[in-house]
Amino acid sequence: MDGFTSFMDAALAEARAAALAGEVPVGAVVVREGVVIARARNRMRELVDPTAHAEMLAIREACRVLGSERLTGCDLWVSLEPCPACAGAIAAARLSRLYYAASDPKSGGVAQGPRVFDHPQAHWAPEIYSGIGEAEAAALLKDFFAARR
Amino acid sequence: MDGFTSFMDAALAEARAAALAGEVPVGAVVVREGVVIARARNRMRELVDPTAHAEMLAIREACRVLGSERLTGCDLWVSLEPCPACAGAIAAARLSRLYYAASDPKSGGVAQGPRVFDHPQAHWAPEIYSGIGEAEAAALLKDFFAARR
Repeated sequence: MDGFTSFMDAALAEARAAALAGEVPVGAVVVREGVVIARARNRMRELVDPTAHAEMLAIREACRVLGSERLTGCDLWVSLEPCPACAGAIAAARLSRLYYAASDPKSGGVAQGPRVFDHPQAHWAPEIYSGIGEAEAAALLKDFFAARR
Repeated sequence: MDGFTSFMDAALAEARAAALAGEVPVGAVVVREGVVIARARNRMRELVDPTAHAEMLAIREACRVLGSERLTGCDLWVSLEPCPACAGAIAAARLSRLYYAASDPKSGGVAQGPRVFDHPQAHWAPEIYSGIGEAEAAALLKDFFAARR
């Protein structure tokens, strides 16, 4: 398995763990020089924190690991298009690349809606790649919400 | 002093404390039924966390205090226009009202740039009031950056 597939697989594994914990299944990892330095899943319910999105937690953990407020040179792999809060956090952390799996027409903030990186106020924009692992990420979300109905 | 002024004063007091700690001077409080239930200042440097904005920390603290992921019925008072990350957090937390002092043409995400609440993807938008305490909030920021040059 090449790195390209395995980093999104690591994010998807976090998403599956989120579903098992009763959280909306989204997972994320931060990669630096080919190594996963932080991984996280949605924990909003567990932590009673509406900001405890996978991306937000992974970014914070990566900053802790590196002892730096800046993640320049690092990549974020996440199973769902980030919302505006997480897109803003990606900019604040100066992540170099964003890879996301499924699009989020409902709450996405990158390729739709506020398009957080597409304004002069975006002092930072990562390179963006989408669609890797999209089918599995979307199926996880669909199954999760179907089971709750 | 009426409540209207004193809640922004509480946010400005947090902003002044941030400046003393060497952080960009922004402060925020969350108010529920006329009572301040959480207060915070920027702590990005102290916590080595690019997401440790005043609003983000105040929202998290308010959720802890109430034991709820939702802050419906609560107000956020903040000395600067929220960035996209904090605007997203405000939506995620379902805050009912947002009061901010100074506009942020450089990084703001509410009245300019991504205008996070002005899209179909914004599943929640608070009532928004701006300009209260603007002069003091702007002066704090200006003095802070002038002293660092």
